[in-house]
Amino acid sequence: MTVTGTARRSRISPEREAELHEAVLELLREVGYEALTMDAVAARTKSSKATLYRQWGSKPELVARALRCAQPVSLRDIDTGSLRGDLRRMVELSDDGQMAKDTALMRGLAQAVHSSPELHLALRQLLMEPEITGLGVMLQRAVDRGEVASDNPAVRFVPHMLIGAFIALPLMEDRSVDRAFLGDFIDSVVFPALGV
Amino acid sequence: MTVTGTARRSRISPEREAELHEAVLELLREVGYEALTMDAVAARTKSSKATLYRQWGSKPELVARALRCAQPVSLRDIDTGSLRGDLRRMVELSDDGQMAKDTALMRGLAQAVHSSPELHLALRQLLMEPEITGLGVMLQRAVDRGEVASDNPAVRFVPHMLIGAFIALPLMEDRSVDRAFLGDFIDSVVFPALGV
Repeated sequence: MTVTGTARRSRISPEREAELHEAVLELLREVGYEALTMDAVAARTKSSKATLYRQWGSKPELVARALRCAQPVSLRDIDTGSLRGDLRRMVELSDDGQMAKDTALMRGLAQAVHSSPELHLALRQLLMEPEITGLGVMLQRAVDRGEVASDNPAVRFVPHMLIGAFIALPLMEDRSVDRAFLGDFIDSVVFPALGV
Repeated sequence: MTVTGTARRSRISPEREAELHEAVLELLREVGYEALTMDAVAARTKSSKATLYRQWGSKPELVARALRCAQPVSLRDIDTGSLRGDLRRMVELSDDGQMAKDTALMRGLAQAVHSSPELHLALRQLLMEPEITGLGVMLQRAVDRGEVASDNPAVRFVPHMLIGAFIALPLMEDRSVDRAFLGDFIDSVVFPALGV
C-alpha cells in the first residue's frame, strides 16, 4: 500500500482545494470518520464524487490531506538559523485554540484508526512522516552548525518526545497541549537532553 | 465521580481475586471492552453477579483493577538507593512479550475510552495515577539524596516523557516498546534532562 497523488493534484485551484479540505474537516467534526461519506463531501462541496476520487483517491487520503492542509505549522518551512530559534518559532506559530480543536479531532480519529489500517497509513504517511522528516532536517542543520553533538543519542528521540508530550498530556490531565506547556516542555526536556 | 473499593476488597481471597482478574483480561482480549458483560465474567468465573458488583462496583472498575493486577512492575515497590538504579530496575522488571500484549490491549481500550468516561476515569485513577505517584516518590527521593537539583524543571515532565514514549513509538513505527527501547530512551533523554 502506498499513498500517491501529487501528480493528479494540479487539476483544481489551490483555493478550491482549501475549500474542499475545510468542508471535509467540518463534516469530520460533525459526524466523525466512520459516518463521513464521499457522497456527503460531494453534496457539501457541490462537486462530483468522480472529482473527489480523481483528486484524492480515497476517503482516508482525503481526510489526511485535509488535516495536513489545516496544520498551521509545517516544520519544513522553519529555518531561523539556530535550533533554539527553530523550536521557539514552532511554538510561536502554534495556536492554543487550534491545538484544542485538533486534540478533539485526533481523539476521534484515534478511534477510527483501529478499524481502518488505510486511515492509519494515510495519517502516518501524509501527516506524521512529513513532520518527522522536517524535524530531522532541522536537527541535522543544528548538528552541522555544531549546536548539537553528532553522536548525541537524544537526537533520534526528539520526535518521540514531542509527539509523546502531545498525547500524554490529554491522557494524564484531560487537557490539550497549549503554547505555554509546549514551550516549557521544550526548554525543560528537549534542549537539556540535546545539550543545547 | 470517584472510584472506591478498598474496604470491600477483603471479602474474597487474593488467589481468587487474581483468578477473576485473569478471566477478565482473557475476556477482554477475546471480545473487547464494549462486548464484555458482567454476565460473561460471572459465567466464566463461576461466580454470582452480586459478588462481582459487591467486589468491584462496576465494569470499568473491574477492568481497571484487572489491568492493574496484571502489571509486572509497580513503581512504588522499587527502591534501589539511586535514581539510575530505580529506573534500570523498572526496565529489568518489564517483559517484552507482556508489553506487546499490553500495547494491543491498551489500543483496544483507547477506543472504548472515547465512549465511556467512566472507563477513562477508572483507568486514570486506578492504573495511571498510582504509577505517576510512585514515580513522584522515586524522583523526590533522588532530589532528597542530592542526585537531582530540587529546581530542575524536567522533574515534573518525567511522567510525560515515559508515558509519551510508550504511546508515540507504536504510533510512529507500528511496534510496541521493548526493554531495549525503554533503556535507550531513559539513558538518552530522561537522565540527561534530569542532569543525572
